Amino acid sequence: MFSFQELSEKFNQEFEHPHFPETPSTLYEPGNYFLNIGGKRIRPVMCLLGNELFSDIHPDAYQLANAVELFHNFTLVHDDMMDAASLRRGKTTVHIKYGDNTALLVGDVMMIRAYEYIQKIKSNHLSKILQIFNQTAKEVCEGQQLDMDFEKMEKVSLDQYIHMITLKTSVLLAASLEMGAIIGGASENNCKQLYEFGKKIGIAFQVQDDYLDAFGDAAIFGKEPGGDIKQNKKTFLLIHALEVATAQQKKELDELMQKESPDKVEKVLSIFKECKVDEWAESLKVKYMNEAFEHLENIAVMDKRKKPLIELANYLMNRTK
Amino acid sequence: MFSFQELSEKFNQEFEHPHFPETPSTLYEPGNYFLNIGGKRIRPVMCLLGNELFSDIHPDAYQLANAVELFHNFTLVHDDMMDAASLRRGKTTVHIKYGDNTALLVGDVMMIRAYEYIQKIKSNHLSKILQIFNQTAKEVCEGQQLDMDFEKMEKVSLDQYIHMITLKTSVLLAASLEMGAIIGGASENNCKQLYEFGKKIGIAFQVQDDYLDAFGDAAIFGKEPGGDIKQNKKTFLLIHALEVATAQQKKELDELMQKESPDKVEKVLSIFKECKVDEWAESLKVKYMNEAFEHLENIAVMDKRKKPLIELANYLMNRTK
Repeated sequence: MFSFQELSEKFNQEFEHPHFPETPSTLYEPGNYFLNIGGKRIRPVMCLLGNELFSDIHPDAYQLANAVELFHNFTLVHDDMMDAASLRRGKTTVHIKYGDNTALLVGDVMMIRAYEYIQKIKSNHLSKILQIFNQTAKEVCEGQQLDMDFEKMEKVSLDQYIHMITLKTSVLLAASLEMGAIIGGASENNCKQLYEFGKKIGIAFQVQDDYLDAFGDAAIFGKEPGGDIKQNKKTFLLIHALEVATAQQKKELDELMQKESPDKVEKVLSIFKECKVDEWAESLKVKYMNEAFEHLENIAVMDKRKKPLIELANYLMNRTK
Repeated sequence: MFSFQELSEKFNQEFEHPHFPETPSTLYEPGNYFLNIGGKRIRPVMCLLGNELFSDIHPDAYQLANAVELFHNFTLVHDDMMDAASLRRGKTTVHIKYGDNTALLVGDVMMIRAYEYIQKIKSNHLSKILQIFNQTAKEVCEGQQLDMDFEKMEKVSLDQYIHMITLKTSVLLAASLEMGAIIGGASENNCKQLYEFGKKIGIAFQVQDDYLDAFGDAAIFGKEPGGDIKQNKKTFLLIHALEVATAQQKKELDELMQKESPDKVEKVLSIFKECKVDEWAESLKVKYMNEAFEHLENIAVMDKRKKPLIELANYLMNRTK
């Protein structure tokens, strides 16, 4: 068995081979550019972890891992277009560097490339994996649409936000584990428990993400915190703050969101702290983590096989960037 | 056995069922809108024809046909964005009606929906069909990229144009037939011959398309001809005209392409006729049709089974719009 860290290194090495042919270079060079700007490669490693929980890693798990990473990168290229983002991981986004039309096609072809890796899966699980992959891919698109819809809505409830985040972020983490588990020969019930583990971890991950964007240490976080606040993004923090704020605090928040002032981030953070949003976020994260671990406990394999998944969860939750 | 016309009607009836769930309606209503604006549904019918050439139509062929039509519509939604087109089949395009971000996601989710139909194929041919579908999908994207690249190039050769058209248009027609044939239990050699038939038909189809855009009868064509000429689009006609024109004609063409004049279409058409581009296009179409029919002859099934494919070819080639 390999540790989470070892599997990360193995995947990163594997992923270095070129994923596209050389021509037409006007299409594939931008694709390679984006794949090479890096990333944490969490999802593909989760495919390997899902397999390893039940048996030695089968070569199919690497095909699956490549597929999931290509799919994730497709969503990033298209999301960056929708968000009109100019930077991703500190590098110029594809649509800024190569134009909208090429970025559109690069995303499309990345998704097709993902399906090419799926097709390489030799085991008799191809149909089942394709079904989960399709279902997940559709849900990720639905989540992105809901995220855009929420921008135009005045009020978003916590439940609505969790539903959106589940689709946009969690299901791909959950499905990565589950599809890996299928390759590993897991039973249906074990797959289901692992999927739920991944889903809850995903929500906890997003709570952490929203928390870091507001309260992260600039030096460690790698960028000035407060990006979400500046954009009035409906995050776990803002949604909760608006739910618990006094009439006066709510009025102040509304006013702050209606204008661009140099001390906007500072003032919003100060209200967040008055509302104890930071403590609430921490406890919400812990709640989802505990639920995740309950599902992990329900998986019928020896405890020692679960160790790399616990390492993964700790890595995700203790990250500071 | 069914005729081409009967299969068209059968597919159109089948395709009427909703292809998307109801929510989120902000994503799926635009998707349904686009699918409902119609189209000739040639590609899905080719899936059925490919199956029927070898055996009675298997339900899997309908899954495949749905997949191919969804995939084709995905390319149209994204191509319309890239071309900044405001109309498609006389109706407002998705990106104009619902905005770029939604159109981007609608295209994405149509492609995923195509793969959902592929996944439903029960036969043991799933892996092979998925491989052809992926390869074709990638080639269509490559063709679209080359088409955009050509817009920026001063000179495009006939061979380059045929290569681009093969990728952008022909391979999907060819693969639709081939994948249908696989479901019909065709041998490898018969599949290969049928694929080549589809590829040549596809090129002849594009010659016809370019011809109609220049020389079509406005009343029958449904729109004023000359759209390609107005946009200086590198078509079969323009590429050939530039190859055979005298120095004086070439100078005139270059000048006409550099400005917007009210008689541009008329003047370019007059040079096209002087260069006998219309006759050349007709003979080029016949050349590809003959090559296509040679491949059809090489397919080892009884002649009467080939009749619906001949009906298809005649329908495509004798169309006036």
